[in-house]
Amino acid sequence: MNASTATVSTLTQSKPTGYVRQLAEAARATSHAIASLDSAQRVALLQAMADAVAAGSDDILKANATDMQRAADAGTTGAMLDRLKLDADRVAGIVTAIREVADLPDPVGQVTRSDVRPNGLQVDKVRIPLGLIAMIYEARPNVTADAAALCLRAGNAVLLRGGSEARDSNIAIAACLHRALRDQGLPAEAVSLVEDTAREHVLELLQLSDLIDLAIPRGGEKLIRFVAEHARVPVIKHYKGVCHLYVDRAADPVLALKLAIDGKLSRPGVCNALETMLVHADIAEQWLPGALAELSARGAEIRGCDRTRALFADAVPATEDDYDAEYLAPILAVRVVDDIDEAIAHIQRYTSDHTEVIASTDTAASDRFIREIRSSAVVVNASSRFNDGGALGLGAEIGISTTRLHAYGPMGLESLTIERYVVRGEGQVRHPDVAG
Amino acid sequence: MNASTATVSTLTQSKPTGYVRQLAEAARATSHAIASLDSAQRVALLQAMADAVAAGSDDILKANATDMQRAADAGTTGAMLDRLKLDADRVAGIVTAIREVADLPDPVGQVTRSDVRPNGLQVDKVRIPLGLIAMIYEARPNVTADAAALCLRAGNAVLLRGGSEARDSNIAIAACLHRALRDQGLPAEAVSLVEDTAREHVLELLQLSDLIDLAIPRGGEKLIRFVAEHARVPVIKHYKGVCHLYVDRAADPVLALKLAIDGKLSRPGVCNALETMLVHADIAEQWLPGALAELSARGAEIRGCDRTRALFADAVPATEDDYDAEYLAPILAVRVVDDIDEAIAHIQRYTSDHTEVIASTDTAASDRFIREIRSSAVVVNASSRFNDGGALGLGAEIGISTTRLHAYGPMGLESLTIERYVVRGEGQVRHPDVAG
Repeated sequence: MNASTATVSTLTQSKPTGYVRQLAEAARATSHAIASLDSAQRVALLQAMADAVAAGSDDILKANATDMQRAADAGTTGAMLDRLKLDADRVAGIVTAIREVADLPDPVGQVTRSDVRPNGLQVDKVRIPLGLIAMIYEARPNVTADAAALCLRAGNAVLLRGGSEARDSNIAIAACLHRALRDQGLPAEAVSLVEDTAREHVLELLQLSDLIDLAIPRGGEKLIRFVAEHARVPVIKHYKGVCHLYVDRAADPVLALKLAIDGKLSRPGVCNALETMLVHADIAEQWLPGALAELSARGAEIRGCDRTRALFADAVPATEDDYDAEYLAPILAVRVVDDIDEAIAHIQRYTSDHTEVIASTDTAASDRFIREIRSSAVVVNASSRFNDGGALGLGAEIGISTTRLHAYGPMGLESLTIERYVVRGEGQVRHPDVAG
Repeated sequence: MNASTATVSTLTQSKPTGYVRQLAEAARATSHAIASLDSAQRVALLQAMADAVAAGSDDILKANATDMQRAADAGTTGAMLDRLKLDADRVAGIVTAIREVADLPDPVGQVTRSDVRPNGLQVDKVRIPLGLIAMIYEARPNVTADAAALCLRAGNAVLLRGGSEARDSNIAIAACLHRALRDQGLPAEAVSLVEDTAREHVLELLQLSDLIDLAIPRGGEKLIRFVAEHARVPVIKHYKGVCHLYVDRAADPVLALKLAIDGKLSRPGVCNALETMLVHADIAEQWLPGALAELSARGAEIRGCDRTRALFADAVPATEDDYDAEYLAPILAVRVVDDIDEAIAHIQRYTSDHTEVIASTDTAASDRFIREIRSSAVVVNASSRFNDGGALGLGAEIGISTTRLHAYGPMGLESLTIERYVVRGEGQVRHPDVAG
């Protein structure tokens, strides 16, 4: 017996191979019907989905209680259990979120370019839906409704594979969405849920390049790496956010401290929180001791380079690993740099392509920072925490991409569409000598 | 010995494993320098590249003679040999093509959206280069210069892997490009050529997801499938063009015949040539016999459904395979359909997502065709042959994508960039209560 058969034999194989292909084929078969709906029909569908979730609240809470019990029995505690939990308020939040997506401007049909060629051809670039989108995610059951709402609003069908821990909640939410689809005279398979959460079915899903136009994994780095490693379908992902704040020699000291505190401490467990602060040597002596004392007093653990530690004795020595770390905790790596070149070189080396911030009143410095840093968001004199769909004006987001292809940064509705060409003529041919 | 070691042992292993990784690392290391050039510097670089190719013409022709001899010795003939061949005119064509790319509008730095948020944040979406692009292609040596010019014009470094048959020509062209880079004070590795064309090195290239932002295969369906099958890097591809012309009941009969002739016969060997014509039953009896006689007289072989054959006895019976075929030859599959629904259903089933044409004077019909067909180009009353970068106003193209992600249809300079966020503030924080 080799390694791969050993792996398969330890999985609960309650559904046969081909189970996900059948689901995906059924979902894909609906994609033309969904893509052909006009904006008002898609808005009506989302409102019906919101109504159905509100009406199904009791069933959803009952199912969630089953999930919570199973998780508690398995010894799950703390943040993980909290992410899984639904109550009346959280279900109401799901309903509101669907209605907010319904209210977003429609990207489908948007003409992004229009041109009349010298031969009279009218050439337009027009947004259309992608087709079938697969979402692969973990604990939070609200993603089931959020992802379905975003995909359908942009005219796509969706194949959902949530985590095993939220299985009953996801089935209950999907049942509401199916009711709404059927009430609108649409096929329920436009939202298809992979109910059997065995790992082998994720592997099968990731091979379906003839059916799935895009897969978006959302969850921990381990899940994302698993998806990236095994996918034959296109994947847009982000592994982690190692976000930097560079405090330039020309930084406003009060502003820089505000950005450090907000970036590190307002919500340390999210991907747009700061992990490393780089400080120009010319400002370090005067600014760093007070700034680190303040951060420390507010609960941050400081891990510093030698020059940082010479200015702030409480700092733990920083290692190479610290510059690579997404702490998801109130820990900040701090390094003093000789100049902006060294700051840019540090970021280019350790960046996760997520968010980098410069605090500087010197426009030449910030322009250079913008030019040489190619992360999904470069921020001048504001907090890294603004890199999300809501704060940047996209409305709801389906994820944040650090893949420098198709979408980069927060992915809103527009990222769930693609531009194609519509060409209108009056009999133009390429070779009039042939076809004349 | 298992299958995979058997495969490796039959390959000429003249370079050790890791050879392509070294090349890609060197190329990637230059990507920041190339991305930081302003538009005028990139234009100057391309002009220097054009000059260097012109100056190196003799060396390139000598190297090409070696490739041609090797190919002739191996028994290569006809179109394949013609694709490989360079002469003074073709080298001059390469020089002109580089200068044309230099003259294209610069996509880098373009602000595609600009918004001031309620909190005063200035949020811009700005185009930046992708980073390192890998091109994998076959016989034509001009692709070496074309691809390098397009990638560098858009601020990217490029890793080139041409076909073994054009190896000496590609090395000679790359040597010219390297001279130009060095003359401009830039690292030659910004254009890196995989000189050892052993297949195992392509496999290695396709695994380098930490170094390569995008791989674009260009060539026959076999090459594209090999790349798609083995890639861990993002790939944009098109397999084949099975382009349709639907002749609606409301078609202008003269116009429809012109589109059929131009689409099928002006250049049958290209991907935007027509393969299948669908004809509305209401117009078939009156239009089809004359149209097919004309196409036939001009050299087209007709393969028809039963209803087509009843109207045009010379037609060969069409099989299921004909509707899937990219003939690359003057052969046309013809099918009579009952209505536009049947035409749309046929296209949705057999489409390669490349180009579909409707001939109709009925706007309701063409609007419906546009709405329900999601190919990269939908064309109303004009020839399918217009789906390329030049004809649609993009200038040169690096390929035509039928991947419904990032770019769909002809890929010009813009497709070699990505939009990211630049956020400018005055000290805004996400949680003033925390950071105040």
